[in-house]
Amino acid sequence: MSEHGKTPVTVLGLGAMGTALTEALLAAGHPVTVWNRTAGRAEAVAAKGASVASTVSEALAANQIVIACLLDYDSVHEVLDPVAAELAGRQLINLTNGTPGQAREMGAWAEELGAEYLDGGIMAVPPMIGTPAAFIFYSGSGTVFGRARTALDTFGGANYLGADPGLAPLHDIALLSGMYGYFIGVIQAYALVGSAGVKAREFAPLLRAWIDAMSGFLERSAEQIDDGDYVTDVVSNIGMQAAAYPNLAQAAKDQGISAELLTPLQSLMDRRVADGRSAEDLIGVIELLKK
Amino acid sequence: MSEHGKTPVTVLGLGAMGTALTEALLAAGHPVTVWNRTAGRAEAVAAKGASVASTVSEALAANQIVIACLLDYDSVHEVLDPVAAELAGRQLINLTNGTPGQAREMGAWAEELGAEYLDGGIMAVPPMIGTPAAFIFYSGSGTVFGRARTALDTFGGANYLGADPGLAPLHDIALLSGMYGYFIGVIQAYALVGSAGVKAREFAPLLRAWIDAMSGFLERSAEQIDDGDYVTDVVSNIGMQAAAYPNLAQAAKDQGISAELLTPLQSLMDRRVADGRSAEDLIGVIELLKK
Repeated sequence: MSEHGKTPVTVLGLGAMGTALTEALLAAGHPVTVWNRTAGRAEAVAAKGASVASTVSEALAANQIVIACLLDYDSVHEVLDPVAAELAGRQLINLTNGTPGQAREMGAWAEELGAEYLDGGIMAVPPMIGTPAAFIFYSGSGTVFGRARTALDTFGGANYLGADPGLAPLHDIALLSGMYGYFIGVIQAYALVGSAGVKAREFAPLLRAWIDAMSGFLERSAEQIDDGDYVTDVVSNIGMQAAAYPNLAQAAKDQGISAELLTPLQSLMDRRVADGRSAEDLIGVIELLKK
Repeated sequence: MSEHGKTPVTVLGLGAMGTALTEALLAAGHPVTVWNRTAGRAEAVAAKGASVASTVSEALAANQIVIACLLDYDSVHEVLDPVAAELAGRQLINLTNGTPGQAREMGAWAEELGAEYLDGGIMAVPPMIGTPAAFIFYSGSGTVFGRARTALDTFGGANYLGADPGLAPLHDIALLSGMYGYFIGVIQAYALVGSAGVKAREFAPLLRAWIDAMSGFLERSAEQIDDGDYVTDVVSNIGMQAAAYPNLAQAAKDQGISAELLTPLQSLMDRRVADGRSAEDLIGVIELLKK
Protein backbone atom coordinates (compact mmCIF):
# COMPACT_ATOMS: atom_id res chain seq x y z
CA MET A 1 0.00 0.00 0.00
CA SER A 2 1.18 3.53 -0.70
CA GLU A 3 1.10 6.31 1.82
CA HIS A 4 -2.39 7.14 0.51
CA GLY A 5 -3.58 3.57 1.04
CA LYS A 6 -3.88 2.95 -2.69
CA THR A 7 -2.01 -0.03 -4.16
CA PRO A 8 0.99 1.14 -6.20
CA VAL A 9 1.21 -0.41 -9.65
CA THR A 10 3.72 -0.64 -12.49
CA VAL A 11 2.42 -0.47 -16.06
CA LEU A 12 4.55 -1.78 -18.93
CA GLY A 13 3.43 -0.46 -22.30
CA LEU A 14 1.84 2.88 -23.16
CA GLY A 15 -0.05 2.19 -26.32
CA ALA A 16 -3.61 3.51 -26.42
CA MET A 17 -4.81 0.81 -24.00
CA GLY A 18 -1.85 0.99 -21.60
CA THR A 19 -2.25 4.75 -21.44
CA ALA A 20 -5.98 4.44 -20.72
CA LEU A 21 -5.27 1.93 -17.91
CA THR A 22 -2.60 4.22 -16.42
CA GLU A 23 -4.92 7.21 -16.53
CA ALA A 24 -7.68 5.26 -14.78
CA LEU A 25 -5.26 4.23 -12.01
CA LEU A 26 -3.94 7.79 -11.60
CA ALA A 27 -7.45 9.24 -11.55
CA ALA A 28 -8.29 6.89 -8.65
CA GLY A 29 -5.18 7.94 -6.74
CA HIS A 30 -2.99 4.86 -7.32
CA PRO A 31 0.73 5.60 -7.51
CA VAL A 32 1.82 4.38 -10.97
CA THR A 33 5.26 3.72 -12.39
CA VAL A 34 5.30 3.41 -16.18
CA TRP A 35 7.71 2.10 -18.75
CA ASN A 36 7.45 2.24 -22.51
CA ARG A 37 9.97 1.32 -25.18
CA THR A 38 9.56 4.73 -26.76
CA ALA A 39 10.06 6.98 -23.73
CA GLY A 40 8.37 10.00 -25.30
CA ARG A 41 4.94 8.35 -24.99
CA ALA A 42 5.24 8.58 -21.17
CA GLU A 43 5.13 12.38 -21.12
CA ALA A 44 1.34 12.71 -21.04
CA VAL A 45 0.86 10.35 -18.08
CA ALA A 46 3.94 11.80 -16.34
CA ALA A 47 2.19 15.18 -16.44
CA LYS A 48 -0.74 13.50 -14.63
CA GLY A 49 1.53 12.14 -11.90
CA ALA A 50 3.03 8.87 -13.17
CA SER A 51 6.66 8.08 -12.33
CA VAL A 52 8.61 7.19 -15.45
CA ALA A 53 11.08 4.30 -15.26
CA SER A 54 13.88 4.47 -17.78
CA THR A 55 14.46 0.70 -17.83
CA VAL A 56 12.27 -2.38 -17.41
CA SER A 57 14.38 -3.35 -14.37
CA GLU A 58 13.63 -0.05 -12.73
CA ALA A 59 9.91 -0.49 -13.48
CA LEU A 60 9.89 -4.01 -11.96
CA ALA A 61 11.82 -2.86 -8.88
CA ALA A 62 9.32 -0.07 -8.24
CA ASN A 63 6.26 -2.20 -7.40
CA GLN A 64 5.14 -5.72 -6.63
CA ILE A 65 2.17 -5.51 -8.96
CA VAL A 66 3.20 -5.27 -12.59
CA ILE A 67 0.63 -4.86 -15.36
CA ALA A 68 1.76 -5.62 -18.89
CA CYS A 69 -0.24 -4.25 -21.81
CA LEU A 70 1.80 -4.71 -24.97
CA LEU A 71 1.18 -5.46 -28.64
CA ASP A 72 1.16 -9.24 -28.24
CA TYR A 73 2.59 -12.07 -26.13
CA ASP A 74 5.81 -12.14 -28.14
CA SER A 75 6.34 -8.51 -27.14
CA VAL A 76 5.79 -9.41 -23.48
CA HIS A 77 8.50 -12.04 -23.74
CA GLU A 78 10.85 -9.65 -25.57
CA VAL A 79 10.45 -7.12 -22.78
CA LEU A 80 10.59 -9.50 -19.82
CA ASP A 81 12.92 -12.32 -20.92
CA PRO A 82 16.09 -10.22 -20.44
CA VAL A 83 15.06 -9.40 -16.83
CA ALA A 84 13.38 -12.72 -16.06
CA ALA A 85 15.25 -13.22 -12.79
CA GLU A 86 13.81 -9.96 -11.47
CA LEU A 87 10.24 -11.29 -11.74
CA ALA A 88 10.66 -13.42 -8.59
CA GLY A 89 8.20 -12.25 -5.96
CA ARG A 90 6.32 -10.07 -8.45
CA GLN A 91 2.64 -10.33 -9.33
CA LEU A 92 2.40 -10.17 -13.08
CA ILE A 93 -0.95 -9.17 -14.56
CA ASN A 94 -0.91 -9.57 -18.33
CA LEU A 95 -3.65 -7.65 -20.13
CA THR A 96 -2.12 -8.14 -23.56
CA ASN A 97 -4.38 -9.65 -26.27
CA GLY A 98 -3.68 -13.30 -26.91
CA THR A 99 -4.96 -16.84 -26.97
CA PRO A 100 -5.66 -19.39 -24.21
CA GLY A 101 -2.53 -21.32 -25.17
CA GLN A 102 -0.33 -18.24 -24.93
CA ALA A 103 -1.79 -17.34 -21.54
CA ARG A 104 -1.15 -20.84 -20.21
CA GLU A 105 2.43 -20.79 -21.50
CA MET A 106 3.11 -17.43 -19.91
CA GLY A 107 1.49 -18.44 -16.64
CA ALA A 108 3.74 -21.51 -16.42
CA TRP A 109 6.80 -19.45 -17.37
CA ALA A 110 6.08 -16.78 -14.73
CA GLU A 111 5.45 -19.34 -12.00
CA GLU A 112 8.72 -21.07 -12.77
CA LEU A 113 10.44 -17.74 -12.20
CA GLY A 114 8.77 -17.36 -8.80
CA ALA A 115 6.15 -14.85 -9.94
CA GLU A 116 2.40 -15.13 -9.55
CA TYR A 117 0.44 -14.74 -12.78
CA LEU A 118 -2.96 -13.31 -13.64
CA ASP A 119 -4.17 -13.05 -17.21
CA GLY A 120 -6.82 -10.61 -18.40
CA GLY A 121 -8.99 -10.10 -21.46
CA ILE A 122 -10.23 -6.54 -21.87
CA MET A 123 -13.72 -6.30 -23.39
CA ALA A 124 -13.47 -2.62 -24.29
CA VAL A 125 -11.71 -0.11 -26.49
CA PRO A 126 -9.45 2.41 -24.72
CA PRO A 127 -11.99 5.27 -24.44
CA MET A 128 -14.30 2.94 -22.49
CA ILE A 129 -11.69 2.18 -19.78
CA GLY A 130 -12.78 3.61 -16.42
CA THR A 131 -16.46 3.63 -17.43
CA PRO A 132 -19.13 1.08 -16.50
CA ALA A 133 -19.24 0.05 -20.18
CA ALA A 134 -15.83 -1.65 -19.86
CA PHE A 135 -15.41 -5.08 -18.39
CA ILE A 136 -12.45 -7.39 -18.06
CA PHE A 137 -12.16 -11.14 -17.69
CA TYR A 138 -9.41 -12.37 -15.35
CA SER A 139 -8.03 -15.86 -14.80
CA GLY A 140 -4.97 -17.37 -13.13
CA SER A 141 -3.86 -16.56 -9.60
CA GLY A 142 -6.82 -15.77 -7.36
CA THR A 143 -4.35 -14.29 -4.85
CA VAL A 144 -3.17 -11.73 -7.37
CA PHE A 145 -6.75 -10.91 -8.32
CA GLY A 146 -7.59 -10.28 -4.66
CA ARG A 147 -4.49 -8.21 -3.93
CA ALA A 148 -4.85 -6.05 -7.05
CA ARG A 149 -8.62 -5.78 -6.91
CA THR A 150 -8.95 -2.08 -6.01
CA ALA A 151 -6.53 -1.21 -8.81
CA LEU A 152 -8.31 -3.49 -11.32
CA ASP A 153 -11.69 -2.07 -10.37
CA THR A 154 -10.61 1.32 -11.71
CA PHE A 155 -10.66 -0.13 -15.25
CA GLY A 156 -14.27 -1.34 -15.29
CA GLY A 157 -16.23 -4.42 -14.25
CA ALA A 158 -13.99 -7.33 -13.18
CA ASN A 159 -14.96 -10.97 -13.73
CA TYR A 160 -12.64 -13.63 -12.25
CA LEU A 161 -13.11 -16.97 -14.01
CA GLY A 162 -10.77 -19.42 -12.29
CA ALA A 163 -7.21 -20.67 -11.91
CA ASP A 164 -6.58 -21.70 -15.56
CA PRO A 165 -4.91 -18.61 -17.09
CA GLY A 166 -6.39 -19.55 -20.47
CA LEU A 167 -9.96 -18.89 -19.34
CA ALA A 168 -9.80 -15.10 -19.67
CA PRO A 169 -8.59 -15.02 -23.29
CA LEU A 170 -10.96 -17.90 -24.07
CA HIS A 171 -13.97 -15.94 -22.82
CA ASP A 172 -12.68 -12.82 -24.54
CA ILE A 173 -12.39 -14.62 -27.85
CA ALA A 174 -15.70 -16.44 -27.45
CA LEU A 175 -17.46 -13.07 -27.14
CA LEU A 176 -15.54 -11.68 -30.10
CA SER A 177 -16.51 -14.76 -32.11
CA GLY A 178 -20.15 -14.15 -31.20
CA MET A 179 -19.79 -10.54 -32.29
CA TYR A 180 -18.14 -11.34 -35.61
CA GLY A 181 -20.89 -13.84 -36.40
CA TYR A 182 -23.44 -11.12 -35.76
CA PHE A 183 -21.42 -8.80 -38.04
CA ILE A 184 -21.30 -11.48 -40.76
CA GLY A 185 -25.08 -11.66 -40.79
CA VAL A 186 -25.53 -7.89 -40.89
CA ILE A 187 -22.99 -7.49 -43.70
CA GLN A 188 -24.60 -10.22 -45.83
CA ALA A 189 -28.10 -8.84 -45.26
CA TYR A 190 -27.12 -5.30 -46.30
CA ALA A 191 -25.22 -6.60 -49.32
CA LEU A 192 -28.31 -8.48 -50.52
CA VAL A 193 -30.84 -5.67 -50.21
CA GLY A 194 -28.28 -3.14 -51.46
CA SER A 195 -28.00 -5.12 -54.69
CA ALA A 196 -31.63 -4.21 -55.41
CA GLY A 197 -31.04 -0.54 -54.62
CA VAL A 198 -32.59 -0.70 -51.15
CA LYS A 199 -30.97 1.73 -48.71
CA ALA A 200 -29.37 0.10 -45.68
CA ARG A 201 -30.98 2.80 -43.50
CA GLU A 202 -34.42 1.69 -44.74
CA PHE A 203 -33.68 -1.96 -44.11
CA ALA A 204 -32.03 -1.45 -40.69
CA PRO A 205 -35.26 -1.32 -38.63
CA LEU A 206 -36.51 -4.56 -40.26
CA LEU A 207 -33.20 -6.29 -39.63
CA ARG A 208 -33.10 -5.05 -36.05
CA ALA A 209 -36.66 -6.27 -35.34
CA TRP A 210 -35.99 -9.64 -36.96
CA ILE A 211 -32.73 -10.36 -35.13
CA ASP A 212 -34.31 -9.22 -31.86
CA ALA A 213 -37.17 -11.66 -32.50
CA MET A 214 -34.65 -14.47 -33.10
CA SER A 215 -32.67 -13.76 -29.97
CA GLY A 216 -34.34 -16.52 -27.95
CA PHE A 217 -32.05 -18.85 -29.91
CA LEU A 218 -29.25 -17.82 -27.57
CA GLU A 219 -30.91 -19.10 -24.38
CA ARG A 220 -32.72 -22.05 -25.99
CA SER A 221 -29.48 -23.26 -27.53
CA ALA A 222 -27.66 -23.00 -24.20
CA GLU A 223 -30.13 -25.44 -22.65
CA GLN A 224 -29.86 -27.87 -25.54
CA ILE A 225 -26.05 -27.80 -25.50
CA ASP A 226 -25.80 -28.30 -21.74
CA ASP A 227 -28.31 -31.14 -21.86
CA GLY A 228 -26.70 -32.65 -24.97
CA ASP A 229 -30.21 -33.04 -26.32
CA TYR A 230 -30.88 -31.52 -29.72
CA VAL A 231 -34.31 -33.03 -30.26
CA THR A 232 -36.55 -30.10 -31.02
CA ASP A 233 -40.21 -29.24 -30.73
CA VAL A 234 -39.54 -26.15 -32.77
CA VAL A 235 -41.35 -26.27 -36.11
CA SER A 236 -38.22 -25.64 -38.13
CA ASN A 237 -35.70 -28.47 -37.72
CA ILE A 238 -32.24 -28.74 -39.26
CA GLY A 239 -33.55 -30.96 -42.05
CA MET A 240 -35.93 -28.24 -43.22
CA GLN A 241 -33.32 -25.55 -42.72
CA ALA A 242 -30.64 -27.45 -44.63
CA ALA A 243 -33.10 -27.93 -47.51
CA ALA A 244 -33.90 -24.20 -47.68
CA TYR A 245 -30.38 -22.88 -46.95
CA PRO A 246 -29.18 -23.17 -50.60
CA ASN A 247 -31.72 -20.41 -51.36
CA LEU A 248 -29.40 -18.03 -49.48
CA ALA A 249 -26.57 -18.71 -51.90
CA GLN A 250 -28.89 -18.77 -54.93
CA ALA A 251 -30.50 -15.45 -53.98
CA ALA A 252 -27.03 -13.94 -53.57
CA LYS A 253 -26.04 -15.31 -56.99
CA ASP A 254 -29.27 -13.92 -58.55
CA GLN A 255 -28.22 -10.51 -57.20
CA GLY A 256 -24.51 -10.70 -58.09
CA ILE A 257 -23.45 -10.96 -54.45
CA SER A 258 -21.00 -13.46 -52.96
CA ALA A 259 -22.41 -15.77 -50.30
CA GLU A 260 -18.97 -16.89 -49.12
CA LEU A 261 -19.56 -15.67 -45.54
CA LEU A 262 -22.42 -18.14 -45.06
CA THR A 263 -20.98 -21.13 -46.94
CA PRO A 264 -19.34 -23.03 -44.05
CA LEU A 265 -22.61 -23.39 -42.15
CA GLN A 266 -24.14 -25.15 -45.16
CA SER A 267 -21.49 -27.89 -44.98
CA LEU A 268 -22.09 -28.41 -41.27
CA MET A 269 -25.87 -28.60 -41.73
CA ASP A 270 -25.54 -31.07 -44.59
CA ARG A 271 -23.20 -33.29 -42.55
CA ARG A 272 -25.63 -33.26 -39.64
CA VAL A 273 -28.51 -34.27 -41.93
CA ALA A 274 -26.34 -37.01 -43.46
CA ASP A 275 -25.74 -38.25 -39.89
CA GLY A 276 -29.50 -38.81 -39.52
CA ARG A 277 -30.13 -35.72 -37.38
CA SER A 278 -32.78 -34.09 -39.63
CA ALA A 279 -35.40 -33.90 -36.92
CA GLU A 280 -33.04 -32.19 -34.47
CA ASP A 281 -32.30 -28.53 -33.89
CA LEU A 282 -29.76 -26.55 -35.92
CA ILE A 283 -27.62 -25.99 -32.83
CA GLY A 284 -26.54 -29.65 -32.96
CA VAL A 285 -23.93 -28.60 -35.57
CA ILE A 286 -21.85 -27.55 -32.56
CA GLU A 287 -20.92 -31.24 -32.15
CA LEU A 288 -19.16 -31.11 -35.54
CA LEU A 289 -16.89 -28.27 -34.39
CA LYS A 290 -15.27 -30.55 -31.81
CA LYS A 291 -12.19 -32.01 -33.41
CA MET B 1 -66.72 -10.56 -52.66
CA SER B 2 -68.67 -13.35 -51.05
CA GLU B 3 -72.14 -12.96 -49.69
CA HIS B 4 -70.54 -12.10 -46.34
CA GLY B 5 -68.42 -9.37 -47.91
CA LYS B 6 -65.19 -11.29 -47.35
CA THR B 7 -62.95 -11.95 -50.35
CA PRO B 8 -63.12 -15.63 -51.40
CA VAL B 9 -59.72 -17.24 -51.88
CA THR B 10 -58.30 -20.45 -53.30
CA VAL B 11 -55.34 -22.04 -51.52
CA LEU B 12 -53.12 -24.55 -53.35
CA GLY B 13 -51.04 -26.67 -51.00
CA LEU B 14 -51.88 -27.87 -47.50
CA GLY B 15 -48.52 -28.44 -45.94
CA ALA B 16 -48.07 -27.01 -42.45
CA MET B 17 -47.89 -23.46 -43.81
CA GLY B 18 -50.71 -23.76 -46.34
CA THR B 19 -52.92 -25.22 -43.63
CA ALA B 20 -52.07 -22.36 -41.25
CA LEU B 21 -52.89 -19.80 -43.96
CA THR B 22 -56.21 -21.53 -44.71
CA GLU B 23 -57.14 -21.63 -41.05
CA ALA B 24 -56.39 -17.92 -40.64
CA LEU B 25 -58.61 -17.11 -43.64
CA LEU B 26 -61.43 -19.33 -42.39
CA ALA B 27 -61.19 -17.86 -38.88
CA ALA B 28 -61.68 -14.40 -40.35
CA GLY B 29 -64.73 -15.54 -42.34
CA HIS B 30 -63.20 -15.73 -45.82
CA PRO B 31 -64.70 -18.43 -48.05
CA VAL B 32 -61.78 -20.71 -48.94
CA THR B 33 -61.44 -23.39 -51.60
CA VAL B 34 -58.48 -25.70 -51.08
CA TRP B 35 -56.59 -28.17 -53.20
CA ASN B 36 -53.81 -30.51 -52.15
CA ARG B 37 -52.10 -33.29 -54.06
CA THR B 38 -52.84 -35.69 -51.20
CA ALA B 39 -56.56 -35.09 -50.71
CA GLY B 40 -56.62 -36.52 -47.19
CA ARG B 41 -54.79 -33.51 -45.83
CA ALA B 42 -57.82 -31.34 -46.65
CA GLU B 43 -60.06 -33.04 -44.12
CA ALA B 44 -59.09 -30.87 -41.15
CA VAL B 45 -59.73 -27.57 -42.94
CA ALA B 46 -62.85 -28.98 -44.59
CA ALA B 47 -64.19 -29.60 -41.09
CA LYS B 48 -63.60 -25.90 -40.41
CA GLY B 49 -65.56 -24.84 -43.48
CA ALA B 50 -63.19 -25.00 -46.45
CA SER B 51 -64.51 -26.26 -49.79
CA VAL B 52 -62.32 -29.01 -51.18
CA ALA B 53 -61.56 -28.99 -54.91
CA SER B 54 -60.70 -32.37 -56.35
CA THR B 55 -58.63 -30.94 -59.21
CA VAL B 56 -56.42 -27.89 -59.70
CA SER B 57 -58.76 -26.75 -62.49
CA GLU B 58 -61.69 -26.81 -60.12
CA ALA B 59 -59.67 -24.85 -57.53
CA LEU B 60 -58.70 -22.20 -60.11
CA ALA B 61 -62.26 -21.92 -61.38
CA ALA B 62 -63.60 -21.35 -57.88
CA ASN B 63 -61.97 -17.95 -57.18
CA GLN B 64 -60.11 -15.11 -58.81
CA ILE B 65 -57.53 -14.93 -56.04
CA VAL B 66 -55.32 -18.00 -55.90
CA ILE B 67 -52.69 -18.43 -53.20
CA ALA B 68 -49.98 -21.03 -53.83
CA CYS B 69 -47.98 -22.36 -50.89
CA LEU B 70 -46.05 -25.40 -52.06
CA LEU B 71 -42.68 -27.02 -51.38
CA ASP B 72 -40.74 -24.95 -53.90
CA TYR B 73 -41.11 -23.10 -57.20
CA ASP B 74 -40.62 -26.29 -59.19
CA SER B 75 -43.67 -27.70 -57.42
CA VAL B 76 -45.66 -24.59 -58.34
CA HIS B 77 -44.81 -25.12 -61.99
CA GLU B 78 -45.61 -28.84 -61.77
CA VAL B 79 -49.04 -28.02 -60.38
CA LEU B 80 -49.87 -25.06 -62.64
CA ASP B 81 -48.16 -25.82 -65.96
CA PRO B 82 -50.78 -28.41 -67.00
CA VAL B 83 -53.58 -25.86 -66.43
CA ALA B 84 -51.65 -22.76 -67.53
CA ALA B 85 -54.39 -21.54 -69.86
CA GLU B 86 -56.81 -21.40 -66.93
CA LEU B 87 -54.68 -18.79 -65.15
CA ALA B 88 -55.89 -16.00 -67.45
CA GLY B 89 -57.73 -13.39 -65.41
CA ARG B 90 -56.55 -14.92 -62.15
CA GLN B 91 -54.57 -13.16 -59.45
CA LEU B 92 -51.82 -15.50 -58.40
CA ILE B 93 -50.22 -14.93 -55.00
CA ASN B 94 -47.22 -17.19 -54.56
CA LEU B 95 -46.12 -17.63 -50.95
CA THR B 96 -43.78 -20.52 -51.71
CA ASN B 97 -40.17 -20.18 -50.49
CA GLY B 98 -37.75 -19.28 -53.27
CA THR B 99 -35.20 -16.86 -54.61
CA PRO B 100 -35.52 -13.45 -56.31
CA GLY B 101 -34.69 -15.03 -59.67
CA GLN B 102 -37.39 -17.65 -59.31
CA ALA B 103 -39.96 -15.02 -58.34
CA ARG B 104 -39.08 -12.88 -61.36
CA GLU B 105 -39.32 -15.86 -63.69
CA MET B 106 -42.71 -16.87 -62.31
CA GLY B 107 -43.98 -13.30 -62.44
CA ALA B 108 -43.09 -13.04 -66.12
CA TRP B 109 -44.60 -16.47 -66.83
CA ALA B 110 -47.88 -15.61 -65.09
CA GLU B 111 -48.17 -12.25 -66.83
CA GLU B 112 -47.65 -13.87 -70.19
CA LEU B 113 -50.61 -16.14 -69.40
CA GLY B 114 -52.78 -13.14 -68.58
CA ALA B 115 -52.59 -13.51 -64.82
CA GLU B 116 -51.49 -10.88 -62.35
CA TYR B 117 -48.70 -11.97 -60.01
CA LEU B 118 -47.80 -11.14 -56.42
CA ASP B 119 -44.92 -12.86 -54.65
CA GLY B 120 -44.62 -13.20 -50.90
CA GLY B 121 -41.95 -14.10 -48.35
CA ILE B 122 -43.36 -15.34 -45.07
CA MET B 123 -41.24 -14.36 -42.04
CA ALA B 124 -42.83 -16.83 -39.66
CA VAL B 125 -43.26 -20.49 -38.87
CA PRO B 126 -46.79 -21.91 -39.24
CA PRO B 127 -47.85 -21.56 -35.57
CA MET B 128 -47.16 -17.81 -35.79
CA ILE B 129 -49.57 -17.27 -38.71
CA GLY B 130 -52.52 -15.15 -37.66
CA THR B 131 -50.61 -13.60 -34.76
CA PRO B 132 -48.92 -10.18 -34.66
CA ALA B 133 -45.54 -11.99 -34.52
CA ALA B 134 -45.89 -13.02 -38.19
CA PHE B 135 -45.10 -10.69 -41.01
CA ILE B 136 -44.94 -11.17 -44.74
CA PHE B 137 -43.11 -9.30 -47.48
CA TYR B 138 -44.99 -8.86 -50.75
CA SER B 139 -43.79 -7.66 -54.15
CA GLY B 140 -45.11 -7.70 -57.67
CA SER B 141 -48.56 -6.48 -58.69
CA GLY B 142 -49.73 -3.64 -56.44
CA THR B 143 -53.23 -4.19 -57.79
CA VAL B 144 -53.30 -7.76 -56.48
CA PHE B 145 -51.91 -6.62 -53.15
CA GLY B 146 -54.72 -4.05 -52.83
CA ARG B 147 -57.49 -6.44 -53.91
CA ALA B 148 -56.34 -9.25 -51.63
CA ARG B 149 -55.38 -7.01 -48.71
CA THR B 150 -58.12 -8.02 -46.26
CA ALA B 151 -57.36 -11.68 -46.89
CA LEU B 152 -53.59 -11.15 -46.57
CA ASP B 153 -54.01 -9.19 -43.35
CA THR B 154 -55.40 -12.30 -41.68
CA PHE B 155 -51.90 -13.88 -41.88
CA GLY B 156 -49.97 -11.15 -40.02
CA GLY B 157 -48.29 -7.84 -40.79
CA ALA B 158 -48.08 -7.11 -44.53
CA ASN B 159 -45.19 -5.16 -46.08
CA TYR B 160 -45.49 -4.32 -49.81
CA LEU B 161 -42.06 -3.60 -51.28
CA GLY B 162 -42.63 -2.71 -54.94
CA ALA B 163 -43.33 -3.99 -58.43
CA ASP B 164 -40.24 -6.23 -58.83
CA PRO B 165 -41.48 -9.69 -57.76
CA GLY B 166 -37.94 -10.51 -56.61
CA LEU B 167 -38.02 -7.97 -53.78
CA ALA B 168 -40.06 -10.10 -51.38
CA PRO B 169 -37.84 -13.20 -51.50
CA LEU B 170 -34.78 -10.92 -51.47
CA HIS B 171 -35.89 -9.25 -48.24
CA ASP B 172 -36.88 -12.63 -46.83
CA ILE B 173 -33.46 -14.09 -47.56
CA ALA B 174 -31.61 -10.98 -46.38
CA LEU B 175 -33.27 -11.34 -42.98
CA LEU B 176 -32.53 -15.07 -42.91
CA SER B 177 -28.91 -14.33 -43.79
CA GLY B 178 -28.72 -11.87 -40.90
CA MET B 179 -30.20 -14.51 -38.62
CA TYR B 180 -27.82 -17.26 -39.71
CA GLY B 181 -24.85 -14.95 -39.14
CA TYR B 182 -26.11 -14.34 -35.62
CA PHE B 183 -26.48 -18.09 -35.16
CA ILE B 184 -22.92 -18.67 -36.46
CA GLY B 185 -21.54 -16.35 -33.79
CA VAL B 186 -23.56 -17.95 -30.99
CA ILE B 187 -22.57 -21.47 -32.05
CA GLN B 188 -18.86 -20.60 -32.22
CA ALA B 189 -18.95 -18.81 -28.86
CA TYR B 190 -20.60 -21.75 -27.08
CA ALA B 191 -18.23 -24.22 -28.74
CA LEU B 192 -15.22 -22.27 -27.44
CA VAL B 193 -16.28 -21.91 -23.80
CA GLY B 194 -17.72 -25.42 -23.82
CA SER B 195 -14.26 -26.76 -24.68
CA ALA B 196 -13.08 -25.51 -21.26
CA GLY B 197 -16.03 -27.09 -19.48
CA VAL B 198 -17.99 -23.86 -19.14
CA LYS B 199 -21.75 -24.40 -19.23
CA ALA B 200 -23.54 -22.61 -22.05
CA ARG B 201 -26.21 -21.52 -19.55
CA GLU B 202 -23.53 -19.75 -17.50
CA PHE B 203 -22.06 -18.05 -20.53
CA ALA B 204 -25.42 -17.06 -22.07
CA PRO B 205 -25.95 -13.85 -20.03
CA LEU B 206 -22.42 -12.62 -20.88
CA LEU B 207 -22.95 -13.35 -24.56
CA ARG B 208 -26.35 -11.68 -24.54
CA ALA B 209 -24.98 -8.53 -22.84
CA TRP B 210 -22.00 -8.36 -25.21
CA ILE B 211 -23.99 -8.77 -28.42
CA ASP B 212 -26.56 -6.26 -27.18
CA ALA B 213 -23.71 -3.82 -26.52
CA MET B 214 -22.42 -4.34 -30.08
CA SER B 215 -25.78 -3.83 -31.68
CA GLY B 216 -25.08 -0.20 -32.65
CA PHE B 217 -23.03 -1.75 -35.45
CA LEU B 218 -26.28 -2.37 -37.31
CA GLU B 219 -27.31 1.30 -37.55
CA ARG B 220 -23.79 2.74 -37.81
CA SER B 221 -23.00 0.37 -40.68
CA ALA B 222 -26.19 1.34 -42.49
CA GLU B 223 -25.08 4.97 -42.57
CA GLN B 224 -21.60 4.10 -43.77
CA ILE B 225 -22.93 1.84 -46.52
CA ASP B 226 -25.47 4.37 -47.78
CA ASP B 227 -22.88 7.14 -47.75
CA GLY B 228 -20.21 4.89 -49.31
CA ASP B 229 -17.84 6.30 -46.69
CA TYR B 230 -16.03 3.74 -44.54
CA VAL B 231 -13.60 6.17 -42.90
CA THR B 232 -14.04 5.58 -39.21
CA ASP B 233 -13.59 7.53 -36.02
CA VAL B 234 -14.14 4.33 -34.10
CA VAL B 235 -11.02 3.30 -32.18
CA SER B 236 -10.89 -0.16 -33.70
CA ASN B 237 -10.36 -0.02 -37.46
CA ILE B 238 -10.20 -2.95 -39.88
CA GLY B 239 -6.38 -2.92 -39.80
CA MET B 240 -6.37 -3.58 -36.06
CA GLN B 241 -9.19 -6.09 -36.34
CA ALA B 242 -7.53 -8.01 -39.17
CA ALA B 243 -4.33 -8.19 -37.10
CA ALA B 244 -6.15 -9.60 -34.06
CA TYR B 245 -8.60 -11.86 -35.93
CA PRO B 246 -6.15 -14.80 -36.29
CA ASN B 247 -6.40 -15.10 -32.48
CA LEU B 248 -9.94 -16.38 -33.02
CA ALA B 249 -8.69 -19.31 -35.07
CA GLN B 250 -5.68 -19.87 -32.82
CA ALA B 251 -7.81 -19.89 -29.66
CA ALA B 252 -10.14 -22.39 -31.32
CA LYS B 253 -7.15 -24.54 -32.26
CA ASP B 254 -5.79 -24.31 -28.69
CA GLN B 255 -9.13 -25.69 -27.52
CA GLY B 256 -9.56 -28.36 -30.19
CA ILE B 257 -12.43 -26.51 -31.86
CA SER B 258 -12.86 -25.80 -35.57
CA ALA B 259 -12.97 -22.13 -36.55
CA GLU B 260 -14.31 -22.87 -40.03
CA LEU B 261 -17.46 -20.79 -39.51
CA LEU B 262 -15.43 -17.61 -39.11
CA THR B 263 -12.74 -18.23 -41.73
CA PRO B 264 -14.28 -16.45 -44.74
CA LEU B 265 -14.39 -13.09 -42.93
CA GLN B 266 -10.63 -13.30 -42.35
CA SER B 267 -10.01 -13.44 -46.11
CA LEU B 268 -12.22 -10.44 -46.74
CA MET B 269 -10.55 -8.40 -43.98
CA ASP B 270 -7.08 -9.26 -45.28
CA ARG B 271 -8.05 -8.28 -48.83
CA ARG B 272 -9.39 -4.96 -47.59
CA VAL B 273 -6.16 -4.26 -45.68
CA ALA B 274 -4.13 -5.23 -48.77
CA ASP B 275 -6.21 -2.67 -50.69
CA GLY B 276 -4.91 0.07 -48.37
CA ARG B 277 -8.13 0.34 -46.32
CA SER B 278 -6.57 -0.33 -42.87
CA ALA B 279 -7.82 2.90 -41.34
CA GLU B 280 -11.41 2.27 -42.45
CA ASP B 281 -14.26 0.46 -40.75
CA LEU B 282 -14.77 -3.30 -40.93
CA ILE B 283 -18.07 -2.85 -42.77
CA GLY B 284 -16.14 -1.83 -45.90
CA VAL B 285 -15.72 -5.56 -46.63
CA ILE B 286 -19.23 -5.34 -48.07
CA GLU B 287 -17.66 -3.86 -51.23
CA LEU B 288 -15.82 -7.16 -51.77
CA LEU B 289 -19.08 -9.11 -51.82
CA LYS B 290 -20.17 -7.31 -54.99
CA LYS B 291 -19.12 -9.48 -57.87
